[in-house]
This record gives sequence, structure tokens and C-alpha cells, in this order.
Amino acid sequence: MSQTPKTLSGVFCASLTPLNEDLSVNHKALAGHCNWLLDNGCDGLGVLGTTGEANSFSLSERLELLDTLAENGISGEKMLPGVGCCAIPDTVELTKKALELGAPGVIILPPFFYKGVSDDGLFDAYSEIIERVGDSDLRVYLYHITPQSQTPLSVDLVGRLINAFPGTVVGLKDSSGDFNNMKTLVDSFPGFAVFSGGDQYLLPIMQAGGAGCITAVCNIAPHMLREIYDNWKSDDAGALQDRMTALRDLIVSFKQFPALRTVVADNTGDANWLRPRPPLRPIPENNQAELLKALEDFSFTLPKAA
Amino acid sequence: MSQTPKTLSGVFCASLTPLNEDLSVNHKALAGHCNWLLDNGCDGLGVLGTTGEANSFSLSERLELLDTLAENGISGEKMLPGVGCCAIPDTVELTKKALELGAPGVIILPPFFYKGVSDDGLFDAYSEIIERVGDSDLRVYLYHITPQSQTPLSVDLVGRLINAFPGTVVGLKDSSGDFNNMKTLVDSFPGFAVFSGGDQYLLPIMQAGGAGCITAVCNIAPHMLREIYDNWKSDDAGALQDRMTALRDLIVSFKQFPALRTVVADNTGDANWLRPRPPLRPIPENNQAELLKALEDFSFTLPKAA
Repeated sequence: MSQTPKTLSGVFCASLTPLNEDLSVNHKALAGHCNWLLDNGCDGLGVLGTTGEANSFSLSERLELLDTLAENGISGEKMLPGVGCCAIPDTVELTKKALELGAPGVIILPPFFYKGVSDDGLFDAYSEIIERVGDSDLRVYLYHITPQSQTPLSVDLVGRLINAFPGTVVGLKDSSGDFNNMKTLVDSFPGFAVFSGGDQYLLPIMQAGGAGCITAVCNIAPHMLREIYDNWKSDDAGALQDRMTALRDLIVSFKQFPALRTVVADNTGDANWLRPRPPLRPIPENNQAELLKALEDFSFTLPKAA
Repeated sequence: MSQTPKTLSGVFCASLTPLNEDLSVNHKALAGHCNWLLDNGCDGLGVLGTTGEANSFSLSERLELLDTLAENGISGEKMLPGVGCCAIPDTVELTKKALELGAPGVIILPPFFYKGVSDDGLFDAYSEIIERVGDSDLRVYLYHITPQSQTPLSVDLVGRLINAFPGTVVGLKDSSGDFNNMKTLVDSFPGFAVFSGGDQYLLPIMQAGGAGCITAVCNIAPHMLREIYDNWKSDDAGALQDRMTALRDLIVSFKQFPALRTVVADNTGDANWLRPRPPLRPIPENNQAELLKALEDFSFTLPKAA
């Protein structure tokens, strides 16, 4: 009998992927960061997401990343990996790997090369993936991230997928930036786990009946998101979220991913963290100091990396 | 000493990919179609392009497609494959395979998941690909297809790449639909081979000093594009292009890729041609008959498939 929980909730980090000088994955640094995230408030790890540059890695690199993370002591039960690719066979293989490692769910981007595809075509794609995986332990979290995928998952499509695959299509990560869409999903589908993909919406999504967050700024502030999540019903929650939102805005004003890499590099003392894979770029050097100074002025502190 | 010609010119087909019932590639039907295209006017084959649904296939499927096509008698010298993926290692591996088979060029999409990336980031990506391939036989045709990639290659970026990799970055396929952009590229970079990605622009791009076309409707009308290309300086050229453009508009009015599949299925008598891979969909059955009737009214005939 399956032990996989019906749905997840809590604070998940869309974790960055550290690279070596030759742009290969630095598996040791990734495991260290994941341990730090779990030690400091995360319920789980959204590895291989947009922040983790999943689509900049080949299938074999992604499979190796998941395997090596498990070998390095990160339990598969803590993983909520991004597995959605343009090619269905790749998505299927990554999903099977996640299940093999014990992941309680996977986040699935729609195929994102063709624009303007129909809901029917997207339904076909998700159906084909789920049927090919063919595992009752599979829990799918759809990924609505219109700014990057340019491939919206309509509320109607989400409903069709929930109905076609009950107990399998159980949630969605919404990185559209449109809170009304998250609210509509929560209101439309009771029991469906809606996660905010933006750090500014953790409190609002909890108040609306959502499941939590899977976010980027969590790479440097898991403790702050944890505090909001644990106290969302308290009188302090609004002030906690305001401070988190201000931090997020500060980070975004420096360009989100390279800014986060800068803070992690500073906290770990490992400059390798600065390096993304093309087409992304590191933050210019003069902006690094400016960012760290701005965070000091903000009185931002984060738990020291091991 | 390298035998690879400096640049290509002529009529290239962005060929469709036929599938079996289980959505795997039907290699035999693909080779048959490629032979038909070469027999009926094509100078070469833009396999694994947007029309060929390249990004819906895994790396291993794409490598196998190229290898099997060669085994089935299609010379690598006739191939101008699409090799651009989101992940640089995938692009590198496909490019090496194309070179191994003797392809005189490859068409490279920019990494297309992240939107709004900088020219610097795209320059990094193309540089990394070219340096990793590290082969003096490499001839790169950049792929500017904004409607799908949502990742424009600016004229400035193209110029930087030509300067950085002279003799390697030798051309571009422009599927933006913006003829002014093609004209600007031709005017800005003498000797740079600009191909139209749209069937309606073969004559205009030749008159502007371009290199030819790599197009979708070529899947059913290689003979018509051949005639335009061979006679572009003649008085008849305008009328030939007008008829080609009218055919293209008719096809597009039925949704381009499924309409083309319908015509090839009809011409070959093989209904398997109708089937795309999700998220694309076949044309509805009632539209199939309507399309074939419209083509009859247009007095469209195509050379019979073998």
C-alpha cells in the first residue's frame, strides 16, 4: 500500500544549483546547501526548478543530480523536483527517477517550446506523461509560470486534469505573479494544494486556503518563511510578511537569481556560487558589494552556512 | 583541409517528423519523405526544426533520428539539422553528431526557457557551444524565431557573433515573420547567409541578397519553391511567388503543421502522418476533407510520393 501522502504543504525552497568552473554541477556544495535549507526551516526542496536552472542541464545531468543528492544524504522524501521538459520522454524518465528516490511529488512544467498551444494539447501532454509513468505513488504538482514558459495552465485545464487523474494531479505551483489566479484555483478546487511561487505571497496564500510556498528567496531566508508559515494565524504575521516582501523586493531590484547567488557565496565563503550556466549571467562585481551593503542596512542576517 | 563550403544557399525543407502509433519516430517514412523532397527540388533538409517538432524529442531520439536517416540512405551532406536546445550539453552533442554525419551546417536556437535574457548571456551560450564543439568544419546558422522562442537575436548580437567566430557563424534562419529584420541582416553583414523561415518571403529575400529559404510548406511544395529559386530574376518570379504565398496562406488558415501533415498523409496514403507529438494536435477529421477540397479548388498538385 502506498505511503505517499495525498498532498504536501509547507515551506519549500526552489534551490539554486552551484556549479564548478567547467559549469558542471558541484554536487557537494548542493548537498551542503540543501542540508542548510532543511536545518533552517524548509519542509522540502524544490530542486531543479526555474531558480535551479533545470532546463539548462541535460537529462543525464539532472538524473545524476538527483541520484548524487540522495547519495550525499538528502532523503528523496525531502525532494519536490522539477521534472517538466519539452520532450515527454525526458519528463517521464525524470519523474520515474524522483519516484525511485522516494520523492513525495514532482513539479511539472508544460512543454514550453510551442506557444499558443491548446488546452487539449496540454491535456494530451500531461496525460501521456502520467500514463507512461504509470505509478500510483505519483503526485503531480502542475507548474504555472507564465513569465518564463509563456504557456499558461488555464483554470479549466487544471480542473480537467484533476478530474481525469484524481489523487495524482494534486497541486500546483503558481509563479505567474497573479495572486487572483492562485485564489481562483484554491476556491475552485477544494483539497487541491496551491503553492505560491513568489515569496511575497506566502501569508496571502495561507489566508486564502493554500498549501505554502516554493520560492527563490527561500535560498537565503528559509528561517523567515518558516516563521511566517508557523505563525500565519497570529497578529505578527502581517509584519513578518511585510519584512519578507521587502527583502524579496530588494533582491529582485538587483536581479533575483544572481543576487541570491551572491548572498549564498558570501554566506558560504565559496565564490563558485556566483556562477550560473549561460544564458544566465553572474551579477557584476560592483553590484555584489552594493547588494551586500544594502542587506546590511536592512539588518538582514541569515544562519551561517556550515 | 576542410571541405565544408563557406555558406549554403537554396531551398531547404523544415521537414515534418512522421510518428508511429506509440509516438516514436517512423524512421522509414521519414527517409521516404526526405528522398521525395530531394527528388522534387530541395537542396537540403532542415530536419529537427520547429516543423519537425525537434524539442518534443529527447536527445537520444534526436541522435537516433540523424543516425538512422543516414543509414537509410540520406547523406549527411544534405542535412541542415536543428540542434538548439535549452541545455548547452545537448546542443553540443547534437552538433557533433551532425558534423560526424557530414552536415554542412547546423541551425541553432538560443536557449529558450528563460525570457528577457541579455545579449551578453546569449553570446555566452553560443560561445560555449562553439568552443565545446571545437571543430573547424562547424558552420552555424543562428535561428531567430521569436514567435516560439520568445528570445530574439538582435542585429547587434548577430554582429558580435560573426566577429567573434568568423567563418563559423555564417548565416541565420529568420522565422520572425518580420521581413525588415531579414533585410537589415542582409544589408548589415555582407556574405552572411540569411534564409527566410517563411514561404512567403523566398522571392523577396533573394531580391534583397539573401541565401534562400528553410520552410514548412516546402513539405508539400518543394517543386514550387524550386521554380521560384531557379527563376527569381525572371519576369515570372512575381507570379510564382504570389501563387506560393496564396498556398501558404491557405495552409496557415487551417493551422500550418497539422494541415501539412494532412496533405502528406493524403499524398502518401499513410494516415500515420497525421499524428504529431503532444502538445501539438492533429487536424480535426472534418477539417481534413475541407482542406483537401480547398487545395483541389486551388488546382494544387504535388508530385506523387513513391
